[in-house]
Amino acid sequence: MISSDLTRRLFVKDRGTKILLVVIDGLGGLPHPETGRSELETAALPNLDALATTSSCGLLSPLGPGLTPGSGPAHLALFGYDPWNNEIGRGALSALGLGLDFKVGDVAARLNFCTVDENGLIVDRRAGRIPTEKNAELCKILAQIRIPEVEIILASEMEYRAAAVFRGQGLADQVTDSDPQLTGVPPRHLEAHRRESERMVDVANDFLVQAKRMLAKEAPANMVLIRGFGGYPVLPQMADVYGLAALGIAGYPMYRGVAAAVGMETVVCDADIEAECRVLEANFADYDFFFLHIKKTDSAGEDGDFELKVRLLEEIDKYIPRFRDLRSDVLIVTGDHSTPSRMGSHSWHPVPLVLSSDWGIADETAKFSERGCRGGAIGTIPSTDLMALALAHADRLDKFGA
Amino acid sequence: MISSDLTRRLFVKDRGTKILLVVIDGLGGLPHPETGRSELETAALPNLDALATTSSCGLLSPLGPGLTPGSGPAHLALFGYDPWNNEIGRGALSALGLGLDFKVGDVAARLNFCTVDENGLIVDRRAGRIPTEKNAELCKILAQIRIPEVEIILASEMEYRAAAVFRGQGLADQVTDSDPQLTGVPPRHLEAHRRESERMVDVANDFLVQAKRMLAKEAPANMVLIRGFGGYPVLPQMADVYGLAALGIAGYPMYRGVAAAVGMETVVCDADIEAECRVLEANFADYDFFFLHIKKTDSAGEDGDFELKVRLLEEIDKYIPRFRDLRSDVLIVTGDHSTPSRMGSHSWHPVPLVLSSDWGIADETAKFSERGCRGGAIGTIPSTDLMALALAHADRLDKFGA
Repeated sequence: MISSDLTRRLFVKDRGTKILLVVIDGLGGLPHPETGRSELETAALPNLDALATTSSCGLLSPLGPGLTPGSGPAHLALFGYDPWNNEIGRGALSALGLGLDFKVGDVAARLNFCTVDENGLIVDRRAGRIPTEKNAELCKILAQIRIPEVEIILASEMEYRAAAVFRGQGLADQVTDSDPQLTGVPPRHLEAHRRESERMVDVANDFLVQAKRMLAKEAPANMVLIRGFGGYPVLPQMADVYGLAALGIAGYPMYRGVAAAVGMETVVCDADIEAECRVLEANFADYDFFFLHIKKTDSAGEDGDFELKVRLLEEIDKYIPRFRDLRSDVLIVTGDHSTPSRMGSHSWHPVPLVLSSDWGIADETAKFSERGCRGGAIGTIPSTDLMALALAHADRLDKFGA
Repeated sequence: MISSDLTRRLFVKDRGTKILLVVIDGLGGLPHPETGRSELETAALPNLDALATTSSCGLLSPLGPGLTPGSGPAHLALFGYDPWNNEIGRGALSALGLGLDFKVGDVAARLNFCTVDENGLIVDRRAGRIPTEKNAELCKILAQIRIPEVEIILASEMEYRAAAVFRGQGLADQVTDSDPQLTGVPPRHLEAHRRESERMVDVANDFLVQAKRMLAKEAPANMVLIRGFGGYPVLPQMADVYGLAALGIAGYPMYRGVAAAVGMETVVCDADIEAECRVLEANFADYDFFFLHIKKTDSAGEDGDFELKVRLLEEIDKYIPRFRDLRSDVLIVTGDHSTPSRMGSHSWHPVPLVLSSDWGIADETAKFSERGCRGGAIGTIPSTDLMALALAHADRLDKFGA
């Protein structure tokens, strides 16, 4: 992986070239047991396949063989940041993405509305994916929670997801999640990974007790799970390490959050490829680097819906000509990680990558799929190497040494 | 990358096996926009292709995806040295390669004769590639420069290139170049990267002022650019880290310089493959390891001359039988980096590699090209891994652990 010190030294300013990075969340899949073809191999993707044949192809490995990333590390790696030494709590990403008042010293956390039965066992970790409007109502109820000497900022996100920022003396992150990632069990007790986090555990427990009482009469969202505690992230900014004026376009707040954390400007828009594409087109003249995030493929994979993921990929394919029409100097289409429908979860499998520029070796026989990108010019590389490759193809990196 | 501590521990002495490493400078290219075929794919290379089908093939990545090396780092990587932590100024490489009196405490720099207009703006950074004889005359003129308490050793190199060694109290490297790498602009002001280098900046500025006056009446070489300041490099020696008696054969002084820096003996010869091949044949009995450097392909690539690079590759191909006739235990043909004619500069793209020994898996369908070596037995590996592979194929590395 290129270090930020190195890119600071090698990047060339003001080249006027543009890089468009389209990230299809949870892109990679696995073969369907009946057909032997993955979601990508099943979908009809004429535009993505055509792009692949004129691009350099390869696979991105988010964290290395066997290691499955969460969304935060997967995106940090794509942006060229060491995902192991730059952990951002999911809550911090949500708070950033929602544009909450979030500062150094605060701790943010994700809240997931859920359904529990009369014994307090979790029946649905997502409360049937309640509508965002219902979420907003429930957040207003939770805004009545009072904890001495602690300020709480709440905001609804999408569907069952909300975020909280806790502000007060002596709060620190590195607290475990109450979400057990399972149903049929009660929420987990929170634990502090370090002594400085003990007060945060007490505050969060107080919050959960009050929330349970306030939500008891609601259905299906009669409880809340808390997870992803994170302090305010302090990361090198893309303008400094790459010399790029960057715009992050993502309907889902968490992805705006990770974009904001590395110094991209962000635009609030619908979580919809058409809306995102319009934002891209409207702002194309004003930035050097564009991160466009497409979420729904990952949700379909997580829900185990092979057919839906195939349909969503086919819908995305229709937008490829619009992306190409912008004539960015470098166009990259890839994913942050795999989310095979058969697994119903993120996975470690490398994800397809196509990179189109004037300076590549075209893989004339490639297809946009796990197997179809495998033998390409780029090979299988760590996600963290992508930014150096993008900068090089945009003529934005100097050579090293004489 | 294998560390020098590890090879010191694992190498096996006196095996009597021989390794021949042929480095074709700037070997890799990119497809021609009209034919879709690279320089290597366009050239008729019967001998290299035949070698590939009986060799293990792969690609070498000099510095990793997207990162373009200069000649120094590219060769250090080929010789198994960490290119990031062993920077050698180009001037130091030139001084070593020219066999100048160059010692610890001295600072060497490259001088490039150039053409400036009446306003001092650079018109040609290479003064029309003046003949080496003219260069020698101009160096005699510059030998009249006097700077109090500083000894200056000057030597002409090839075409427009010369080298200077500065000797005196308080001189240090880490000074920026005056060469702006552009035409239509004036030379850059020199800057010290650290306080210890400030006297070197003063001395070099004094040198440039006097040089400008002395060269004012010359044409086309009426000025000199200074670059690549470097102190005497102190690197582990190949005899110690690999147990190899090594010979570096390179017509161009800079490549003898990098060979000398890692402890190879070097022989001065013409920058001509025939001359280099004769030196190789004459000395084959007396060393274990041979580095033979072929320069002209890189120059053709840098000049953007696709056809010339193709012809030069075809000329090199004719020498492959003579290399094979020597029956080295390991024969490697590769490049230090790519220099695609279409880019007219070094690039980051991986370069073809063939390695022939008794212990390889032959890639029977390979071709000696960027795409033809891609699927081979070796895969895409960092250049820094090559030496361990060469030693292993020469039966010169012990196993690690019991």
